Amino acid sequence: MIIIMKSNHTDDQLREVSARVKALGSSPHMIHGETHITISVIGETKHIGSEAFAGLDGIERVVRISKPYKLAAKAARPEGTRIRVGGVEIGRGGFLVMAGPCSVESEDQTLRIARAVKAAGANVLRGGAFKPRSSPYAFQGLGDEGLKILAKAREETGLPIISEALDMQGLELVARYADIIQIGARNMQNFPLLKALGKLNVPILLKRGMSATIEEWLMSAEYILAGGNEKVMLCERGIRSFDVQHSRNTLDLNAVPILKSLTHLPVIVDPSHGTGFRHLVSPMALAGMAAGADGIIVEVHDRPEEALSDGPQALLPSDFEDLMGKVEKMGPVLGVEVASTSRSGKRNAA
Amino acid sequence: MIIIMKSNHTDDQLREVSARVKALGSSPHMIHGETHITISVIGETKHIGSEAFAGLDGIERVVRISKPYKLAAKAARPEGTRIRVGGVEIGRGGFLVMAGPCSVESEDQTLRIARAVKAAGANVLRGGAFKPRSSPYAFQGLGDEGLKILAKAREETGLPIISEALDMQGLELVARYADIIQIGARNMQNFPLLKALGKLNVPILLKRGMSATIEEWLMSAEYILAGGNEKVMLCERGIRSFDVQHSRNTLDLNAVPILKSLTHLPVIVDPSHGTGFRHLVSPMALAGMAAGADGIIVEVHDRPEEALSDGPQALLPSDFEDLMGKVEKMGPVLGVEVASTSRSGKRNAA
Amino acid sequence: MIIIMKSNHTDDQLREVSARVKALGSSPHMIHGETHITISVIGETKHIGSEAFAGLDGIERVVRISKPYKLAAKAARPEGTRIRVGGVEIGRGGFLVMAGPCSVESEDQTLRIARAVKAAGANVLRGGAFKPRSSPYAFQGLGDEGLKILAKAREETGLPIISEALDMQGLELVARYADIIQIGARNMQNFPLLKALGKLNVPILLKRGMSATIEEWLMSAEYILAGGNEKVMLCERGIRSFDVQHSRNTLDLNAVPILKSLTHLPVIVDPSHGTGFRHLVSPMALAGMAAGADGIIVEVHDRPEEALSDGPQALLPSDFEDLMGKVEKMGPVLGVEVASTSRSGKRNAA
Amino acid sequence: MIIIMKSNHTDDQLREVSARVKALGSSPHMIHGETHITISVIGETKHIGSEAFAGLDGIERVVRISKPYKLAAKAARPEGTRIRVGGVEIGRGGFLVMAGPCSVESEDQTLRIARAVKAAGANVLRGGAFKPRSSPYAFQGLGDEGLKILAKAREETGLPIISEALDMQGLELVARYADIIQIGARNMQNFPLLKALGKLNVPILLKRGMSATIEEWLMSAEYILAGGNEKVMLCERGIRSFDVQHSRNTLDLNAVPILKSLTHLPVIVDPSHGTGFRHLVSPMALAGMAAGADGIIVEVHDRPEEALSDGPQALLPSDFEDLMGKVEKMGPVLGVEVASTSRSGKRNAA
Repeated sequence: MIIIMKSNHTDDQLREVSARVKALGSSPHMIHGETHITISVIGETKHIGSEAFAGLDGIERVVRISKPYKLAAKAARPEGTRIRVGGVEIGRGGFLVMAGPCSVESEDQTLRIARAVKAAGANVLRGGAFKPRSSPYAFQGLGDEGLKILAKAREETGLPIISEALDMQGLELVARYADIIQIGARNMQNFPLLKALGKLNVPILLKRGMSATIEEWLMSAEYILAGGNEKVMLCERGIRSFDVQHSRNTLDLNAVPILKSLTHLPVIVDPSHGTGFRHLVSPMALAGMAAGADGIIVEVHDRPEEALSDGPQALLPSDFEDLMGKVEKMGPVLGVEVASTSRSGKRNAA
Repeated sequence: MIIIMKSNHTDDQLREVSARVKALGSSPHMIHGETHITISVIGETKHIGSEAFAGLDGIERVVRISKPYKLAAKAARPEGTRIRVGGVEIGRGGFLVMAGPCSVESEDQTLRIARAVKAAGANVLRGGAFKPRSSPYAFQGLGDEGLKILAKAREETGLPIISEALDMQGLELVARYADIIQIGARNMQNFPLLKALGKLNVPILLKRGMSATIEEWLMSAEYILAGGNEKVMLCERGIRSFDVQHSRNTLDLNAVPILKSLTHLPVIVDPSHGTGFRHLVSPMALAGMAAGADGIIVEVHDRPEEALSDGPQALLPSDFEDLMGKVEKMGPVLGVEVASTSRSGKRNAA
Repeated sequence: MIIIMKSNHTDDQLREVSARVKALGSSPHMIHGETHITISVIGETKHIGSEAFAGLDGIERVVRISKPYKLAAKAARPEGTRIRVGGVEIGRGGFLVMAGPCSVESEDQTLRIARAVKAAGANVLRGGAFKPRSSPYAFQGLGDEGLKILAKAREETGLPIISEALDMQGLELVARYADIIQIGARNMQNFPLLKALGKLNVPILLKRGMSATIEEWLMSAEYILAGGNEKVMLCERGIRSFDVQHSRNTLDLNAVPILKSLTHLPVIVDPSHGTGFRHLVSPMALAGMAAGADGIIVEVHDRPEEALSDGPQALLPSDFEDLMGKVEKMGPVLGVEVASTSRSGKRNAA
Repeated sequence: MIIIMKSNHTDDQLREVSARVKALGSSPHMIHGETHITISVIGETKHIGSEAFAGLDGIERVVRISKPYKLAAKAARPEGTRIRVGGVEIGRGGFLVMAGPCSVESEDQTLRIARAVKAAGANVLRGGAFKPRSSPYAFQGLGDEGLKILAKAREETGLPIISEALDMQGLELVARYADIIQIGARNMQNFPLLKALGKLNVPILLKRGMSATIEEWLMSAEYILAGGNEKVMLCERGIRSFDVQHSRNTLDLNAVPILKSLTHLPVIVDPSHGTGFRHLVSPMALAGMAAGADGIIVEVHDRPEEALSDGPQALLPSDFEDLMGKVEKMGPVLGVEVASTSRSGKRNAA
């Protein structure tokens, strides 16, 4: 930690800052530059927030040197984290495709789509039972009933399932059924929920908040890791930007190689929410893969015009099959192992 | 609702859209323009989401005409909502000042600051017992204990208290003690929590999400109103923007007159979180008032260098007193009634 | 300047960085922290960009300590810059109101509006002769002819005039007629134009770019100051944000007190472009004043429905008169001297 | 064009709007919905801006149906535009790689790098002679001298060259030497410059403004097309976003498939400025290609630590060679023809 004093600080202010560094158990190392005095705080500083000096006068800026996350940092596991879900693995070269409807709407709908995505090569079935909706008047999901339908689809297709939990009460239910628990963008900084996730032994897919910085996102992962749950995947799902005329969100693929350099956790890309429109989904799924993601999560619906949520961004099963064909061809070019191919030799063999 | 067909749509697509409008119980009214056919959906449409047509092909865009919120809309109560808190009222010309420390840190600290803000003319005491912190390693608040300290400060000073609830469990506790329940930016779209708030009869201060649109914010208020709780205040606390070098957030004061034209709910401005730095707080508090806010909420700490959270943005009691002096002088210019003045004739008389 | 080495840097990398510091004529001062080595660069560093080390390996981050602008910095003139325009002064307590139509459309229109804003107390007449329009098919301004009309309006009313220059060729013309040259948001980083402005002896109103950081903005002012022209005013006119449903831009009033702490240059607020809608203009003009601005620039049109540009954001003369009434009452509360009042004793006396 | 009246409009207001529609030569078609009256404007409306109704009262919103750009729209040339540069072609399946230093610094530097990128398979040499720099104290480019060096590099390597023009004066020079003229982000809305470009017969690479919407960007292209120059390529180079800790800009790859659906113009991706850091460039170059771009433009420097600008984002020649290897393998998977491969059969054969 480095404290940069204002160019016009007083001696008293400098003494106070210095005293505070010592009071915190560290030693101040002063350097007189041309225009500014800087104070390096030497010693163990991880318990010291930059706020420790925030109230003192005469300080221009406090620069943190070490990262505020430890368990999520790359250095904690340089070889990368690999997470096993059902029979497949994600991370360290293993590429996973999760697909399915936005919402579980009925048993028939879910089973139809589950079969279709399985046939096309998906590795995990997605489907929402609890839906976060901006309007109190919109469809809020089938709840418990939806989870049972997903379980039935898993039984039939063999696909592990991922579903979203919105709160503590729902979490208990979702944890009972799902192979992966999804935490949505709006809950990325729901700290009590994150603490509860830390006590589970189920893989978590943690979506990025709508305007969360990468550091904030990793700090939220740190909450889960600090609780003892090591199975965290990060999911980029689009950030809020100034142009919403042609896409709902701005898929921030820069985040993929950035995360790869900062953390050992697997990174997933969601091109469905990241764009909001069907015709943009496949190009952006491939772009996410090319950027270095460890997997994608894609909404698929065979009757999008009847979908109770997010119909405009759902791929048709035939679109999804085309996408899977390209995903499988891109695997070897990028040096990643697409689970559907590796498992079965060929896509539709399953 | 108006459906704009693509210029190259097919007859079949037009028929399908038309059929869907009828299936939804409305009647389609087609208009042939120079380049596009548009379909007006006539009849009761409030149960129809724009998603109802989302999956259909040949559609360029669906334009909603009516607002998605009803209870929060200005039309629902054109004269504006006035909320009574303790002996004071906010809204319809009543201007409220809430002040106090970011976090309740100890009984002594809270009582000291409570007395100071009371003396300066504040109407409500703020203080966090449950703190949402981006780091799992940061101070998370005193919890239950903090609420008891606030209650003691209320007893001594007579000031009503406002404190934040983070989740359902904390909500029960906060609701037991606080006169106003604060919902933070990160929980603006915590829908299960919003539903729970709708069942209470306590005033709610609903902060705007970090990158929430005004419509999303009003939809979140609609959740609370739809549950039966009419006492909602909206609090602008800064949005996320591209320049974070000199302020933590960008206080969006445009939101104040915009909200005044869209809703009957009182609007509060938080210049402390909206800027993040002490020297910006007073100018922006006055700016918020000039923009038409019904109140401000300000962090005050007498020893900011010892504050366990947000020290850099806390006003000193003397700064706050200066600010109150200006607030009281600006009241008559803007035609609002500052509670501290109206109640006591003069500021420090209380 | 401080160089923070990566925690896993090699000795060779450290040696190279150290050598480079010396090659640049400074001396490296190394400090060994718990996790990182940091190198303070001691000596005159203002000619060294942070890029000087950018290509070297093993570096985590380079932290600049001194500000990249010198002439624009507060320290260069702590008492603040005051600029004289016509008979009035802006800065150091002098508050200026500029008003008029977006575009000069005809002599009749300009004279009518000039008389109206003069009567209401404006100090400067605004009007665009060269208009930057996002569409090649939109009205592009009257050009030279428009400038002559403005000059006629000045002759009749005595109001100094401000008008925008878009390029070098237009600059010559505008400089011949205008008392203040306006540089629009889209030209804030038109560096050849900024250099040309530096050679003039005319006050410049430099609008902030749509998504310019405050530092970039001050660097653009620095271009003009470095050329020798000291008469620069900064104009906040709204930044681009994620919510464009209810306002065209987000007026960033935080920028006002921030600039006041960083620079000696006067700060103007443009609530017309900063909001885009008439009903938001007056509240935000007052908010800008309360935030500490040295002046406002407001669009006024007596027949906004016929305006060739920006009709929706133009105040009617009667709205403007109301606004001026409040501006004049707020002056004493905020401790600023509104030129119209100070000059004439009362508003409409002029 | 559809005009949505406020729910509380008066009959007079409705009459005035109606009269205005007729005055503009169109006919109003009124539809009475449940809550709102809407007026469809029937007839030729392309000369009518939405501002035409902006000043009238009683209007809630005006919805444009047709796009404001005509020549840039996909419909103007559905098969896509292909542009020939030197011996290679871009667009309609032709993929182009432009590479070279940020700035031309010396003849030796430029020739060295030109040879390296040529050997690795680049199709066009990039290099800046006029540099837009945010600081007046930074290196501003070699100017005319730089252009001559580029011409020499073209002579030796056979690579066509691309270089940036900043203003009218520089444009004449650049147009004399360059095979493609680059217009930077800061000049995307320099309308006088765009008009001048429209009169040339040289391909233009038009970079997206820092926070330009896609529609604004296409309108800027429309300026050039309307002037008569049909050879316009659009270059996504990163937008401004809220997180600048780990990348300089946010490369908006959503823009690629969006543009592909809206316009016939070729789309280029600039992963160097789009990220700002070397380790992010190759993944994002591949991501851009996978998203459907027609080409990439990449900064390469063999001694980045000596670069006078943008050293941190320059690829080393060896990195660039690796990238080209992947680009060439991805071509067939995506169905695009990489020029270097098609021309020579294999990469290093040239």
